[in-house]
Order: sequence, then structure tokens, then C-alpha cells
Amino acid sequence: MKFGGTSVADLDRIRNAARKVKREVEKGYEVAVVVSAMAGKTNELVGLVRKAAATEGEGESSFYDAREYDAVVASGEQVTAGLMSIVLQEMGVPARSWQGWQVPILTNASHGAARIEEIRTEALERKFAEGLHAVVAGFQGLGPDGRITTLGRGGSDTSAVALAAALGAERCDIYTDVDGVYTTDPRITKKARKLERIAYEEMLELASLGAKVLQTRSVELAMRYKVRLQVLSSFSDEPGTLVCDEEEIMESRAVSGIAYVRDEAKLTLISVADRPGVAAAIFGPLAEAGVNVDMIVQNISEEGRTDMTFSCSVDDVPKAMKALQEARARGAINYRDLVADTEVSKVSVVGIGMRSHAGVAARMFKALADEGVNIKVITTSEIKVSVLVDRKYMELAVQALHDAFDLDKTADRLEG
Amino acid sequence: MKFGGTSVADLDRIRNAARKVKREVEKGYEVAVVVSAMAGKTNELVGLVRKAAATEGEGESSFYDAREYDAVVASGEQVTAGLMSIVLQEMGVPARSWQGWQVPILTNASHGAARIEEIRTEALERKFAEGLHAVVAGFQGLGPDGRITTLGRGGSDTSAVALAAALGAERCDIYTDVDGVYTTDPRITKKARKLERIAYEEMLELASLGAKVLQTRSVELAMRYKVRLQVLSSFSDEPGTLVCDEEEIMESRAVSGIAYVRDEAKLTLISVADRPGVAAAIFGPLAEAGVNVDMIVQNISEEGRTDMTFSCSVDDVPKAMKALQEARARGAINYRDLVADTEVSKVSVVGIGMRSHAGVAARMFKALADEGVNIKVITTSEIKVSVLVDRKYMELAVQALHDAFDLDKTADRLEG
Repeated sequence: MKFGGTSVADLDRIRNAARKVKREVEKGYEVAVVVSAMAGKTNELVGLVRKAAATEGEGESSFYDAREYDAVVASGEQVTAGLMSIVLQEMGVPARSWQGWQVPILTNASHGAARIEEIRTEALERKFAEGLHAVVAGFQGLGPDGRITTLGRGGSDTSAVALAAALGAERCDIYTDVDGVYTTDPRITKKARKLERIAYEEMLELASLGAKVLQTRSVELAMRYKVRLQVLSSFSDEPGTLVCDEEEIMESRAVSGIAYVRDEAKLTLISVADRPGVAAAIFGPLAEAGVNVDMIVQNISEEGRTDMTFSCSVDDVPKAMKALQEARARGAINYRDLVADTEVSKVSVVGIGMRSHAGVAARMFKALADEGVNIKVITTSEIKVSVLVDRKYMELAVQALHDAFDLDKTADRLEG
Repeated sequence: MKFGGTSVADLDRIRNAARKVKREVEKGYEVAVVVSAMAGKTNELVGLVRKAAATEGEGESSFYDAREYDAVVASGEQVTAGLMSIVLQEMGVPARSWQGWQVPILTNASHGAARIEEIRTEALERKFAEGLHAVVAGFQGLGPDGRITTLGRGGSDTSAVALAAALGAERCDIYTDVDGVYTTDPRITKKARKLERIAYEEMLELASLGAKVLQTRSVELAMRYKVRLQVLSSFSDEPGTLVCDEEEIMESRAVSGIAYVRDEAKLTLISVADRPGVAAAIFGPLAEAGVNVDMIVQNISEEGRTDMTFSCSVDDVPKAMKALQEARARGAINYRDLVADTEVSKVSVVGIGMRSHAGVAARMFKALADEGVNIKVITTSEIKVSVLVDRKYMELAVQALHDAFDLDKTADRLEG
């Protein structure tokens, strides 16, 4: 059971979370609880580190010893783990706290963004055998140098999934401030419906496409180790959404959800000399400049010349323009014009059912056409179709697609 | 170099402390810095633990798992150690933080009030050899159960002295919010003078007699391992007071300082049946009731009967009265009357020079008599004479004694 920062923001919320733990204990489970720092705490500690690293009177600095950053920031989870153990004990649930180095959760040496390499569960399991439930500080581990590491933002989800895998847990329940995974963002259409189950692959597409329920990394880890993930709310007793293997999903839908990314930009290099290696010549400098390129489309325009279009975050546009102009200046690439459209959004339909249901793309394009939404770029993968549309049509597009794929109805009715 | 909570209360103060560290590094020293939690932090964490331990809606509780208390509370020093390392690095001083378990500082299993059993300095010394100065989280260690322990309040001084002993340090500098040890409390007489040096024994008497500069435990430890302790201010560059072996003190004074305890109480058991074991019968129940008895005086009053007088803190008087009345009720002791005087203070003159200077007590009594201060109880030890006086005369007594022993003058002039 993993509780994020807002779920342990104060003692009342820690007690609320502890009651959920107690309920599972009463069902007969041995429970490992993974906790984040109390909401706001990590930011406060990071702020102290940045101020400490600055020359006096200069505000903040991002140049600091990541090992010291880890030592300072990991204290947040340590505090929550101790408090949660005390609250559980007070409720009659035998429990003890474990810091990353105590478990131990062994990571590589990448301080500030470490990867878990091994979790030794013997000590935890010995204590389970004594009837002692575990409260583990999330987000942290022990590096090969014997110093505390942290896993980077969102790392507590990763801690929880990795621990569930190491322990062979029946389930990994991620308690958060949303109560599950929806067919789309409920703020965009009231018809959005909570999914009972979703496949790992779908969740990955939804997560990376902008649905902010789970960290991509933790879903990947869950998929690799077949950890059944349940996303549910700390603040209600509603059932959540189970992220699981495709085989556990009985419903047969073409599309599970509609994702979107609001602030996308489309850049087009017009009339690029089309010779072998041109793509590398374009995207190499972009990668070096730290531009996160998303969709890439190449159109044949005229003999020996081509148009190359790609999308990235609006924030990356200045870097991207600069990198491409510099590449042209030094003769690495050749194009006639560079056009940026910063007023687009990406809308995607996602579903493992696409593999067996034909015509998903056609149905998508028709639905958008019926609403008069112009499609600017299309890309597809095995389980998703993404389009760029003008930002002013984004909500309309999501709503139209949600209707077109009957996502407000349960799969049974849809297929039955 | 040890910096207490007020000396690291915020980043400006941590920088100020770091500059003092840098100065010592520039003198060529390898420095181990011991830090406390930022002022207020420990109280905040203790408050969280007490609230967590309470049943919901019931405020605070003192019944909690001391191991979890330690895990939570030790985080305060951990944060300061990381921040101090970052600040030192920013100033160009190579440094790294060490938590208690990393050094390791091994303690016994008394969570919340652990005693240091061993400090393994090999890892620290290896890093010193690489030019890396150490910032060690004070107040904490590693218990035999592999869990974090804390040393109890004031434990950071103990950490510093123990570490200095283990490292064979030339000196242990305790930076605090006072700038040294004075002949008496400067709030009581402006003539109070800072001592350049003071012997361990004197410091112990002064500390336990109410001068709140250093924790008794850390002075005892320093004396046992011959660690030269320097007490000095974080907020000035004045030299402090060196607490050292008697042999290092060239001055030959009879008296080094005047200490006082304002809120004392005097209890007298009148006409106690005087038989063997009566003292045990009286002080046994008091110890069981948790009464900290200070001075004890027995006067012969009449045949077969005696008066027994003792002093304790005013706060302990109700417990003491109850314990003695109960002991009488069950026939364990027999006395005619029990009288409490809660309006007394203790004033003591302290000095290793008493051993060789005769007449200190006589000079003390005369000085008090000259001011019309009545002495209610007297006790003496090898290096101190303590008296109880009416609380209203306490300040007068301290001033008179300070004058009588010429403590406003340096020892040279006094003896020369």
C-alpha cells in the first residue's frame, strides 16, 4: 500500500491512511506500507538545499553535491514512516518503520535519480513472520558508496512497485488524490467514466500521453514484474482501477481512453534536401539541445526535397529553433524555411483492443471531421492513434472521440 | 567543532558557522563538525510524535515506540549535516555529511536516551586522508538492533566530545550562544568575568549547580578521556573558555566561580526516631517517587531522635511530601512533623584551589554574615561549599561572594 504526499499531509490524513492499512491487516494480509514525505516537505527541503548551495545573498543555486541533497531530502520520508508506525501501533496494528538503508533497498550510484538494483527482503520477511507490518520510507535507497540515494520525483511509486515485486505481493495499491483511471479527463467531459481495469500497455500510453495518475517508470516496472497495481483514492472507499496484465481483462473494447497534451508545438522544416542521414542531421542537434521530440512525420514534397514535421512541448520551441538554425548555419542541414505552430494540442485514442478491432483510426478521423476539427499531424502505434489539432478544438475533439467510442458506456454494453 | 541549535538556526547562521570551520581548516586542521538540528526543529518533531501517539482528538501522548521517536527526531540533525556540507563545499571547503549509522557511532539499545559505546573512526579517517572534512549529525547513533538511536536532550555535546576522544582531537570547540564560562551569571552581577580556563572538576560543579553552559554528561566524558573542551560563542570572534585538566591551569585561585540554583526547597523531618537504617527508610521512598534529592543534613536534636533536612527542586515538593507521608502511614518511618520551605535558593562557591587554600568556607560565611544573609543549610565537598539562603537574598549573596573572592579581578592580580 503506497500513500503519496497529499495522503499523508498531516496527522489526520496519516490516521486516515492507517485505517485503510488496518482494514487490509484485518483481512489477513501482511502489509508493507510505502510512504512519501508529508505534502510540501520535499519542496521545503529542496529549497533549503538550493539556498545552501548559493553564494550568500544570491538566492538559490542548482549546483550542489547530489549526495548531500539526498541525505537532506530523504529525511522527509523518514519522518512520515516513523509517524505512520506510531499511529498504526496506537490503532493496535504492530508495525515498524524501515528506512531505505535498513531494508536495504540497494540502488546504483546516481544520486538524486537512482535506480533500484536489488531489494533484500529477508529482514522484512523475518519481521512479517513475527507479526510486524512494515512501513517503508519511499523514494530512497542505499547507494554502493554506503550513502543515501533518492530515486527522483515520483520515486515513491517506484519504491512501492519494486517492493511489491521483491515480496511477491498479491497487489500494489497506490493511494492518491484521484480515485482511479478514467476514460478521459473528467474536467473535459462529465461523461468520463472510471475504468475497472486497464492493461499495463494502455496505462503506459495514457501516462506518457498526459494522464498524470501514475509515473511511467512505475508502470513499466509493474509490467516487467507483473505486479498488479491498483490506483485508488485515499479520501474515499470507492473501488479504484486495477492496472494489470491484458489477460486479466475480460472486456473487449477497441478503445479504453482518450488522452491529451494541451501545450504542444508543431515545427516544420520546409524543403529539406532529402539525402540519406538527413533525419539524423536534424534530430541529433535537437537531442543535444535537450529538446524532447514527440511525433515525427516526413512528407514527400518535390523531387529531392522533403518537408519534415515534428512536435515537442511549447516550452522547448526556442531551444529547438536555435539548434536547427545553428545546424543550418554550419551547413549540417539545409532547409528553405522553418515554421513553428505553437497553438496545437495532441489528442490520442488508446486501447489494446485496437489490435483486434479494425477501423479505429477511420472512426476517429470521421468523428473529428463531423465536428469540423482539422487534423494537422497523425501518428499511430500498435495500441494508439494520436493527432495534432488546433488548441482551440482540443476539448471538442476529446468530447467527440469519447462519444464516438461510447466510452461513457461500460464495455459489456458496448460489445454485448 | 560543535554547533548547537541556535548556531545553525537558519542558513545565514549555518554560513556563519561554516566560516568558523573554514578558518580552522585554513590553519591546517582536519575538522570534524558536529551539528544539532536547526533551532525549534527537534521540538517540532517531538510534537509530531506525541500527537501521532495520541488517540485521535486527544492531543498528545507520551506513550510511543521510542525506536520510532528516534527515527523521526534524528532527521533534524541529518538535515543540518547535509546543509552544512553543501555550504562548506560552496565556500571551497571539501566536506561530506555523516549520519550516526554511517560513521558508525555505536550506542546501547536505550532508544531516546542511548549511551555511546564505540565510535569506529576508520571511515572518517580515510576521508580525512583524502582531504574531506566531516560534518557529523549529532545526538544520534546506531543501536545494536540496527536502528537509529538518539542520545537524549543535549546529546550533541556528548556526540562531539565522544568523537573528539575517538579521533584523538587536539580540542573540542563547543560553539553556543554564550561566549564562555563566567565567574558567575552576568545577569546577577556586572562584575562577572569570563574565565580563560577552568578545570573539568570545577566545570562539573558549576554545570550541576545550575550554570547552563555545558551538559554535565559531556563534561564528565571530556574529563574521563582528557578532551580539551573550548566553550565559545558562534556570534563573536572573542576567545572562549577552555575546560581542561587542572595541570593546564597556571592560575592559582581559591575560588573560580559562584553558582546558584534559584528554585530550591528545603524539607525537614522533625524528630525522627534515630535508629540504624533510618536514612535508607527516608530516602528509599523518595528515590522511588522520582525525587531528585540534593543536599542532605542530619542534626542531632535530642536523645534517640534526630532532625533530617534535605533539599530538592521546588517542583518535586508535592511528590516528596506524598512519599514521606505514605511511608509514615505504613510505619516505615516515624517523625513528628514535616516542614517544607519552598522559598530558598542554593548558592555555591566552586574552585579546585580550595584544596590548597584554607579558610574558603570561613570567608564565605563572613561575607554572607556581613550582608545579613542567614544561612539555612551548609554542605561542602572537596572543591565547593554550598549554602541554602532565603530566595530574596540570593542575588545579594551571589554579589557579595563574587566581591569577597575578588572574582572581578584576574587571578594574576589576585595572587600576585
